[in-house]
Amino acid sequence: MPLAVVRPENREHLVELLRWADAERMPVTGRARATNQVGSAVPVHGGVVVSLLRMNAILDIDDRDFVAVLQPGVVTADLQAACARQKLFYPPDPASVKTSTVGGNIATCAGGLRAVKYGVTRDWVLGLEAVLPGGRVLNMGGRSHKDVVGLDLKRLFVGSNGKLGLISEVTVKLIPLPEAAASVLVGFADLASCMDGAMAVFHAGLLPSACEFMDETVLSVVRLSGDIPVAPEAKGALLFKLDGTQEGVDAEVRRLVAALKTVRPVSVEVGVGAAEEAIWDVRRGISPGSYKLKPNKVSEDLSVPRSQVLRLVESAQELGRTHGLPVLCYGHLGDGNIHTNIMHDASVQGEVETAHVIKEALFRLALELGGTISGEHGTGLSKASFVGEQLSADEMQLMADIKAVFDPNSIMNPGKGW
Amino acid sequence: MPLAVVRPENREHLVELLRWADAERMPVTGRARATNQVGSAVPVHGGVVVSLLRMNAILDIDDRDFVAVLQPGVVTADLQAACARQKLFYPPDPASVKTSTVGGNIATCAGGLRAVKYGVTRDWVLGLEAVLPGGRVLNMGGRSHKDVVGLDLKRLFVGSNGKLGLISEVTVKLIPLPEAAASVLVGFADLASCMDGAMAVFHAGLLPSACEFMDETVLSVVRLSGDIPVAPEAKGALLFKLDGTQEGVDAEVRRLVAALKTVRPVSVEVGVGAAEEAIWDVRRGISPGSYKLKPNKVSEDLSVPRSQVLRLVESAQELGRTHGLPVLCYGHLGDGNIHTNIMHDASVQGEVETAHVIKEALFRLALELGGTISGEHGTGLSKASFVGEQLSADEMQLMADIKAVFDPNSIMNPGKGW
Ligand SMILES: Cc1cc2nc3c(=O)[nH]c(=O)nc-3n(C[C@H](O)[C@H](O)[C@H](O)COP(=O)(O)OP(=O)(O)OC[C@H]3O[C@@H](n4cnc5c(N)ncnc54)[C@H](O)[C@@H]3O)c2cc1C
Ligand SMILES: Cc1cc2nc3c(=O)[nH]c(=O)nc-3n(C[C@H](O)[C@H](O)[C@H](O)COP(=O)(O)OP(=O)(O)OC[C@H]3O[C@@H](n4cnc5c(N)ncnc54)[C@H](O)[C@@H]3O)c2cc1C
Repeated sequence: MPLAVVRPENREHLVELLRWADAERMPVTGRARATNQVGSAVPVHGGVVVSLLRMNAILDIDDRDFVAVLQPGVVTADLQAACARQKLFYPPDPASVKTSTVGGNIATCAGGLRAVKYGVTRDWVLGLEAVLPGGRVLNMGGRSHKDVVGLDLKRLFVGSNGKLGLISEVTVKLIPLPEAAASVLVGFADLASCMDGAMAVFHAGLLPSACEFMDETVLSVVRLSGDIPVAPEAKGALLFKLDGTQEGVDAEVRRLVAALKTVRPVSVEVGVGAAEEAIWDVRRGISPGSYKLKPNKVSEDLSVPRSQVLRLVESAQELGRTHGLPVLCYGHLGDGNIHTNIMHDASVQGEVETAHVIKEALFRLALELGGTISGEHGTGLSKASFVGEQLSADEMQLMADIKAVFDPNSIMNPGKGW
Repeated sequence: MPLAVVRPENREHLVELLRWADAERMPVTGRARATNQVGSAVPVHGGVVVSLLRMNAILDIDDRDFVAVLQPGVVTADLQAACARQKLFYPPDPASVKTSTVGGNIATCAGGLRAVKYGVTRDWVLGLEAVLPGGRVLNMGGRSHKDVVGLDLKRLFVGSNGKLGLISEVTVKLIPLPEAAASVLVGFADLASCMDGAMAVFHAGLLPSACEFMDETVLSVVRLSGDIPVAPEAKGALLFKLDGTQEGVDAEVRRLVAALKTVRPVSVEVGVGAAEEAIWDVRRGISPGSYKLKPNKVSEDLSVPRSQVLRLVESAQELGRTHGLPVLCYGHLGDGNIHTNIMHDASVQGEVETAHVIKEALFRLALELGGTISGEHGTGLSKASFVGEQLSADEMQLMADIKAVFDPNSIMNPGKGW
């Protein structure tokens, strides 16, 4: 429980707040929509929580500079919609796009569905204004699409989870809105063919704007709410999206379907327009559907080298079977970034502990496979104690020393691992 | 003149060297192909120059993980060619691709021709191994396409110009090689239509993989070596490249040509295959051609918001006329990143000074227009004294303090501005 919640409306409010907080050695935790999944916005050391949600103005969308300038509290989908009205495109697309904010996305370096083609939030940040403890205002970068003067401070803020300072204004890069898109939902007879299917598409020279994976348990969970366009015998499915010009998309759909032939899919559903939305309802059905299995979940976002996804998923399923809890595996296969949801019932004795046993085994496996314990969400509170298994002591010391450069009195979001 | 040049062959050599150098407070300047244009590899404080050119092995190109692992001294074009043999693509493409190294590109965050679609070197770096002063070895990131654990140290090394430590191994992201490409060279009646032409293409929803600009002086310089496929009355030209599937590229070429109609180009030349190479010979002819005007050049890489390129180019031309020196303007219009070559004859009294007067006026103009004094090359030695005009005192202090975290005795590439 924090001492207070502050709801600043502009930079000046932040300056005053951080000047005072630094002098008083008062912990400060930024908070946008708090969707980060790992407790990053939880004020473990009390102090002041700063809600950024009143700073939610889109200041400029410029179709000549191809930039948007905005306050951090703008919901990402609102920015995308405003851009689309000017035929502009802001690609970063976390599944939480309708609930999370651009500032939160930047502070976490959010990934998302389109990362396989368009990269993550970091790749779209051109300029940041941030207020540091003590009230100093930093203006880093700007509307220029390239800039290599000095160290790249602005991108150090990307993914810094509010531990260096508070982001008060943002300039992001835009591109022309692709005119057309189509999606293809493909069922496979087994998990290995599913992975081979993804490889076949890449090896056909295609770079889809999404390449999502769903395992058997996930498919069964979504089916609880109704029929889905995946063959019942499928042991896994891939959901691809392609975007570009109409002619380009048509050609890519043909090629994608042809490339998949070699791995003999059990069902192929091509969706355009309304039918495309219906296909994506399958993906959107995962989170609500999962709770029909068990009321609680431990949700992770492991990422491994692409070739290791099969081993990660097989091991997750095996761990679930061994420990008697359903483990859902799905997510951004194109990035090797798999969400594992360990479903459990916290009111049943031992299930929480079992879920955590599975989670820890998966963390260690991801590291063994050359991956990371967090591809998207960050480590926050819930993974804080595992950071040292991934990062070396040297790296952690350097991070602490860099944090101290911005925040010498360590008031910014303390208690979060590094 | 350095005290010595060291040519390490592996990480252990670097560890030994940097352990010794730190103890001895010996300046250390990394050097790859020294193409950086701003004197970044010049050992101004003497000490030891470390040539990375013997560390030039490609260790792995993996068509399942979509990564390449290599030593820093690999020439970028060699990496690209090796990737292409496996139908893989490493997009970063500085015009110096055949002479500069991947390590140098990372240390400078090189941009290049394809940045408008594919981003800059930073966007392709997944993992870095670096050796720090004192001999500590850092392993940052790896083969995972996403990773948000801790501060993003690896990308802090990107663009750090050898001032934090020496990069000893690199893991970069790859994508499928696009199967087809085509280029279009377009001449315009005046500079304003040239800029409008670029906008018309973006507003038609196209994102070309290159969008290069050449002004009138540049066209005349290239013509000195022979005929070029641009109408003689053109006062500026744009060179677009499109890539993707064959069908996609065909469609995009048609749309691009249609979109340009509104700005009435004076010539349109579409090039595919060998004809595409011929078109690019125009671009490649700029640098050799420029020396036919005057034997020396001051070469800058200003970058401004895209809508401000017209003003930048008009002012550069005007400055050239006023001061009686030819100023060539060309480059990566898609990024607002314009190369200005101020041609002069160093043996003629006053011309060097005049070139620098023009350069300084251009720096200030770029900053006034909301741009940067360096979009690609960095500030090195030649722009060191201007860094303070772009960065705030706070930013410079933070950079110095961060540098001190890695390099407390300030032995790494000292004397370079920040
Ligand atoms: C259903 C669902 C789906 C999701 N899908 C994805 C996905 O596909 N990809 C993905 O990457 N993530 C995903 N997430 C996680 C989450 O949405 C992201 O981490 C998101 O970026 C958090 O944004 P937020 O606005 O909720 O920020 P918060 O959770 O409020 O804050 C996140 C962190 O940023 C800090 N912070 C917030 N604002 C600022 C600021 N202005 N300045 C400095 N620090 C600040 C906070 O202190 C905190 O540490 C998903 C979450 C849910 C619930
Ligand atoms: C004709 C021509 C065209 C060019 N076109 C472009 C272009 O389109 N885009 C662009 O961005 N640049 C361009 N450049 C500039 C230049 O090629 C780039 O800056 C390039 O990245 C430098 O690479 P290099 O291997 O020559 O490195 P160097 O110039 O040798 O070194 C560059 C910097 O990196 C440091 N360094 C080198 N290796 C390491 C290492 N292993 N670890 C740590 N530090 C290291 C050096 O100390 C130095 O500070 C061009 C240059 C020329 C001559």
